[in-house]
Amino acid sequence: MRILLDGMGGDFAPHEIVKGAVQAAAETDAEITIIGDEKAIRKELKKNKYKGDQISVVHASEQITMHDTPVKAIREKKDSSLVKGLNMLKDGSGDLFISAGNTGALIVGARLILGRIRGIDRPALASIYPDMENRRPGLLVDAGASAESKAQNLLEYGLMGSIFIEKVWKRENPRVGLVNLGAEESKGTSVTKDAYQRLKASGLNFVGNVEARDVANGVCDVIVCDGFVGNVILKLTEGVCMTIFSLVKQAIMENFKSKIGGVFLKSQLGKLRSDFDYEEYGGAPVLGVNGPVMKMHGSSTATAVKNAILRGIPYAEEDVVGIIKKEMLEMDTIDEE
Amino acid sequence: MRILLDGMGGDFAPHEIVKGAVQAAAETDAEITIIGDEKAIRKELKKNKYKGDQISVVHASEQITMHDTPVKAIREKKDSSLVKGLNMLKDGSGDLFISAGNTGALIVGARLILGRIRGIDRPALASIYPDMENRRPGLLVDAGASAESKAQNLLEYGLMGSIFIEKVWKRENPRVGLVNLGAEESKGTSVTKDAYQRLKASGLNFVGNVEARDVANGVCDVIVCDGFVGNVILKLTEGVCMTIFSLVKQAIMENFKSKIGGVFLKSQLGKLRSDFDYEEYGGAPVLGVNGPVMKMHGSSTATAVKNAILRGIPYAEEDVVGIIKKEMLEMDTIDEE
Repeated sequence: MRILLDGMGGDFAPHEIVKGAVQAAAETDAEITIIGDEKAIRKELKKNKYKGDQISVVHASEQITMHDTPVKAIREKKDSSLVKGLNMLKDGSGDLFISAGNTGALIVGARLILGRIRGIDRPALASIYPDMENRRPGLLVDAGASAESKAQNLLEYGLMGSIFIEKVWKRENPRVGLVNLGAEESKGTSVTKDAYQRLKASGLNFVGNVEARDVANGVCDVIVCDGFVGNVILKLTEGVCMTIFSLVKQAIMENFKSKIGGVFLKSQLGKLRSDFDYEEYGGAPVLGVNGPVMKMHGSSTATAVKNAILRGIPYAEEDVVGIIKKEMLEMDTIDEE
Repeated sequence: MRILLDGMGGDFAPHEIVKGAVQAAAETDAEITIIGDEKAIRKELKKNKYKGDQISVVHASEQITMHDTPVKAIREKKDSSLVKGLNMLKDGSGDLFISAGNTGALIVGARLILGRIRGIDRPALASIYPDMENRRPGLLVDAGASAESKAQNLLEYGLMGSIFIEKVWKRENPRVGLVNLGAEESKGTSVTKDAYQRLKASGLNFVGNVEARDVANGVCDVIVCDGFVGNVILKLTEGVCMTIFSLVKQAIMENFKSKIGGVFLKSQLGKLRSDFDYEEYGGAPVLGVNGPVMKMHGSSTATAVKNAILRGIPYAEEDVVGIIKKEMLEMDTIDEE
C-alpha cells in the first residue's frame, strides 16, 4: 500500500500533515510519500524525530492555496503538491491520494487529471456526517461538488456511497436514504421524485425518503442529496452545534451553582464533543473519478491526518473504484438515459 | 380588531385553542371568533370559566384533519372550520385568520379562497427561525409552500418577509439574506445567482448570500430560500437540537458527579430551551395571499395560541397585505419578467 499525501494542503500544513504521517507510520506498514516543499517537509520530519524509511518526500515547487480558483489553479500550478499528487496516482506511483487542500481544486483536479468513471455524469464529494444516535459516521453524498443534480446523479451518489461504506467501513448492506420533504414517495421536486423511483429500482438497500429531522439520527448510512442541500446540511449542523455548545457554556458561567455544575459536567460534555469530532473519522472520498482520492478537513491536525491515512487504506485495498466501474458498466446496459 | 380563530386545527384542539383565546382576551380588547364545533367550544369556554362577550363562536360542522389531502379537503369540506374561517376573512367578517391546522390545506385554502396578491407568483409559508445569537426570532421564507422556486419567487419572499418584520415585529430596515453555498455573488445555482442580482437591485436591505452555518447566528432577519431548502433548514435544526439535548441529558445521567452537576445546571438548560420555544413566538404568516393568515405549530398549546393572537394583531392592524400589494404594483412597472 502506497499512500500519496499532499504535504501542503490545509490550514496547518506542512507541520500537522507531516506529524500525522509519522504517527500513521507507527501503526501501519504502508509506504507514505509526502508531496510538497521538500525542505520544509524534511525539517518537520526531523522535528518529529522520524528516522525510518517508510516515509519519503517528493518535491513540489508550487502550492495551491484556499484563495486559488480551482480550474485556474489546476491548469496553471502544474508543479503544485495537489496536481503532482494526482498525477502520481494516475501514473501508478501510488495507490491513494489524500489532501486537506482547496476542496474545489481537489475535485476539479481529480476530474481533469484522473477523469470520470465511465457512466458517471458527475463526480461527488462525500462527507462524513455524524450519526449521533449510533455514534458512528454516516456518509453524505454530495457535499457540494455540484450545486445542482439530476435524478440520475442522485442514483449514482447512492450507489457509490453504498459501495464505499460496505468496503471501507465494512458495514453490510448500507441503508441508502434520499433527503426529501416527507416520507411519501409523491413528495418533493420533480428531480427527487424521479430519483426516488430510480433508487427504488436500483437493488440498493433503499430505505426511501428521509426528512432532514432524522438525518442526524442514523436512519440511513448513505444520505443522498444534491450538493446545494448537502452543503446546507453540513454547514447548518456545524452552526447549530457550535451555537448550542457556546450557549451551554454561557449557561454554565451564569452563576455560582451552575458553575459548580459545569465543572462536574465538563468531562461528559467533552466526551460528547469528541464523539462528533471529524478528526476521528479522518477524511471522506471524492467519488466517481478514476482513482481513490480522499479529502480531509481544511483544519486537519495530526490526529485527523493519521486517521485519514489509516482509515483510508481499504479505499484503495478493496478496489472501491474498480467496483464502482463494474457496477456502472452493468447499469449502462439497463440505463434508460 | 376581529380575530378569526380556527377552533379545530392542531393536535390539542379545541381545548388548548379555546384556553389560549381566553388567555388572550384577558390581554387585548380584540374580538375573537372561534370557528368550529360549537358544542365542544362552548364546553371549553365554560371549563375556562369564560363569561365575557369578547369571544364568540361560529359553528362549523366539518373538520380538516392532518391526514386530509389539501386540495381535496378545501374542495370537499366546505363547512370545515378552516374553509369557513378563510371565507369569513374574505367577506370581511374578520381581520386576521389564525389556524394550527393542516399546513398544506391552509396554504391551498388561502390561495384558492383569498387568491394571490397580484404580481405574486407563489404565496409562501414563513416560519419563525430562532436567532440564537440575539435570542430573538428571524423569519425564514419559504418554509415549504413550494418545493421549487424561481429567482423572482425568491425576490418576492425577501420583499414580503421584510415588510412583515418591519410592520409586525417593529424592526427597522430588516436585513435580508439569501441562503447560498458561499458569500461570493458568483456562488450557487443558476436560480440563486439570478436571485442575488434581483435582491441586490431591489432596494431591500440585502446583506448578500448567507451560508447555512450562519443562519442561526442572526446574520439576517429574513432568511430567503426555496421551500425545499427551507424545509431542510427547519427540520434539521429541530433534529440536531433535539439530539444534542438528549445527549446532554444522557451525559448528565452517566455518573454520580455529572448527576450532581446536572442538578445545578438544570435550571440554566431549561432557560436555554425556552429561549427557542416556538410557543413564545406564536405563529408565522402565510405571505402573498389577499388577507392576513397566520399558521401556528400543529402542537400549539394555550400559550402558543395566546401569543399568536397577541403578536398577530399588527399583521392586520398595520395592513401588511395592503403594503405588499402596493409594492408589487410598483415592482410591476419595472419588472423585466
